[in-house]
Formats: sequence, structure tokens, C-alpha cells
Amino acid sequence: MQVFIPFSPSNPKTRLSGLLTKEERVEFALVMLDDVINVVESAGGIPILLSTELVARDIEIIVDERQLSVAVNSIIENSELPIAIVMGDLAIATSENVKKLIDASGEIVMVPGRCGGTNAFVTYRSDFRVDYHGTSYLDHICIAEGIGAEIKEMDSFRLSTDIDTEEDLIEILIHGNGKSKEWLIDAGFYLDIKNEAVKILRR
Amino acid sequence: MQVFIPFSPSNPKTRLSGLLTKEERVEFALVMLDDVINVVESAGGIPILLSTELVARDIEIIVDERQLSVAVNSIIENSELPIAIVMGDLAIATSENVKKLIDASGEIVMVPGRCGGTNAFVTYRSDFRVDYHGTSYLDHICIAEGIGAEIKEMDSFRLSTDIDTEEDLIEILIHGNGKSKEWLIDAGFYLDIKNEAVKILRR
Repeated sequence: MQVFIPFSPSNPKTRLSGLLTKEERVEFALVMLDDVINVVESAGGIPILLSTELVARDIEIIVDERQLSVAVNSIIENSELPIAIVMGDLAIATSENVKKLIDASGEIVMVPGRCGGTNAFVTYRSDFRVDYHGTSYLDHICIAEGIGAEIKEMDSFRLSTDIDTEEDLIEILIHGNGKSKEWLIDAGFYLDIKNEAVKILRR
Repeated sequence: MQVFIPFSPSNPKTRLSGLLTKEERVEFALVMLDDVINVVESAGGIPILLSTELVARDIEIIVDERQLSVAVNSIIENSELPIAIVMGDLAIATSENVKKLIDASGEIVMVPGRCGGTNAFVTYRSDFRVDYHGTSYLDHICIAEGIGAEIKEMDSFRLSTDIDTEEDLIEILIHGNGKSKEWLIDAGFYLDIKNEAVKILRR
């Protein structure tokens, strides 16, 4: 299955600005992207980068400068289905997770992210459309119901964890097993577990 | 399978103090507990409350005033195995989730929570011990490895979502389908989706 991975390399992960410089954020975003590409390939998927600008990666790239929802809808309309869309910052995803997503039954299979996001989906329906603003997960259920599609929710902690905040980095240090975890450790990050609440600190 | 549900009714959910009075927090914690009891029963499990004080609920109750880890370890030592431990604040858990946990293979099946927590587990090993301080998930893996147990991770967004913070309430309004969601709506809570980041507000 073709697995499109949306990505935007310009000023990424702004909510990590307190911990990482802009250059580091770009580098880290690319490292997370590499982890996602790796697990998609290991799962037997065909990763295709859907990027707002050209990125030097050894896979097929579609450059689309438009808003995420517009770009993804264009992919749905113009691809041979089924396809999957998997966000480029799912840094603790495993190949088993992606395989389960690809293999799931249902005309539209959706993976919720924290706070109403939609971190990944598979569609067998060319008339499905996305709208990533706000509580996109609820909107996507409405849209899928509106076209009478059979919807399935895929319940996955690892796929629900997109990396946006400092707290999210904790999940990588605990559950990661790819380059993103190595990158954070090399950059001096470690877990502070002295108190009840776990924190991430930098040397 | 016996499913023990740890619970502490005195001054619960202090991180929700900005949104809820102490009385409301107690009431809401009990409503979440009822949701967990319901899904355990629907999953074919036998719910047993492991509470720090007496609570009026129509199921078996074990009152143990000691620290959570001590109380849970005592349960593991003194129960006929396998048993499950499922936290009382997993308000968006479904009976399918709990059934999957109960049915999972592995001598110790663990469900990670956000930030290193352990939200649920099943043990077939009487020599397994818990330590809920700090990054308990990593500690529990170490302990399980130390006794040579076969460990399995159960990957579930819904079971990984324990309700501690205001942001967690958003997950109930989006993904809940029990009393907890009703309670929040009746108490006037709603989602503010006007901006990019989803917020929870109260009328």
C-alpha cells in the first residue's frame, strides 16, 4: 500500500522552541521522519513523502505547498486506492503498528491522536475528504458518516503519540527504539525521575 | 479473571483543581470508577475495588490504606493468578480494550500510560512486583525481566489515557461513551475548537 507521509520542514515543531534551536528542530523533525519512513518500509508499505518543499530523502517525493488538508485531499482524489496517510512525527510508531493499520478492515480506518487529532488513516473511499483544523478526528468521523462509509477506529498508544510538546519527548525516551531516541540522547536529553512527575532535562 | 481496580477517594484528581471543586472531583472520580467497573463487567471480568477507604459500590471491595504499590503487591501475592490491575480513571476504556487485555498472551502484559505510567497489567507470575513511583513502566519491565518473565506490551490509546489533567478531559469529551462524558457535559464543559489548539471550557 502507498503510505503518504505529510511533512513540512520550514520552522517545524515550534512548541519545542524552549528546548531546541530552530536548526535543531529542523534536524530532529527529519530524524523523526526517517524513523517513520523506516517503520513504513519494514511494514511492507511504500512510503511517499508529501512535503511542502523539497527534502533530500531516498524515496518518492511529492512537493505540494498548499495547506495540509488541500494537499491530502488531492492525494486521495488522484491516487489508486487504498492509500494510507501517516504523519511524519509519529516517532514511537513500530512496523507492527503500521502493518496493523495497513491490514485493518474497514473502508476508512482512523487513528486518533491526542486532543482530537487524526494521526493516521487508511481510505478505500475516493470520496473521503480531510479537514485537519481543530478536532479533526470528530470532523473526519462526520465526513466519513456523511458519505456512508464503514468507519473503523484503530486504538494505538504508539500511533496516537505525535511529537509536538516537551512532554511528548518523554515518550520517545521511554518507548522509542529508533533514531529519534538516539538523537535526543546524543543531544543531551535525559529523564528526571526524582520527583513524582517525570520531566525531561538537558545536560 | 479477577480485575482489581485501585482507587483513592480522598482528595482525588488534584490537577483538576482549577476546573473542579473538591466535592466535584470526588464525584467525578467515582463516576469514572463506575465507567471502569462497567467495561470490566462487560468484558467478562470480575471487578474488585481496591480502595484506600470504604466506598459504597455494589461489587467486592478490599480496603487497604497502604501505599498503592504495597497494596497491589499484596494482591499479587495473595490472589489466585492470573489477575489484572486496571486503574480507576481510565474513563475512555471500552469493554473491547479490557477484553483484549484479559485475553492477551504473555506472562506479564503491560499497558503503558502517558509519561511512563503503567495504567493496567495482567500477571500470571506471583513473583512479579510493582513500583508505581516515577517511570513505573520502565521499572516494571526491569522487574519482569529480572524474574525472567515473558513480557508483552499492549498498545492502546484508550487504555493509555488516564485522566489527570485538564487536557485529559478533552479526550473524554471526544472519545468517551460512558457516564464520565455525560457528567462533564452536565457540569457545563464543552470543547472550544475556534483556535488551532482544542481547549476545554465551562459554561
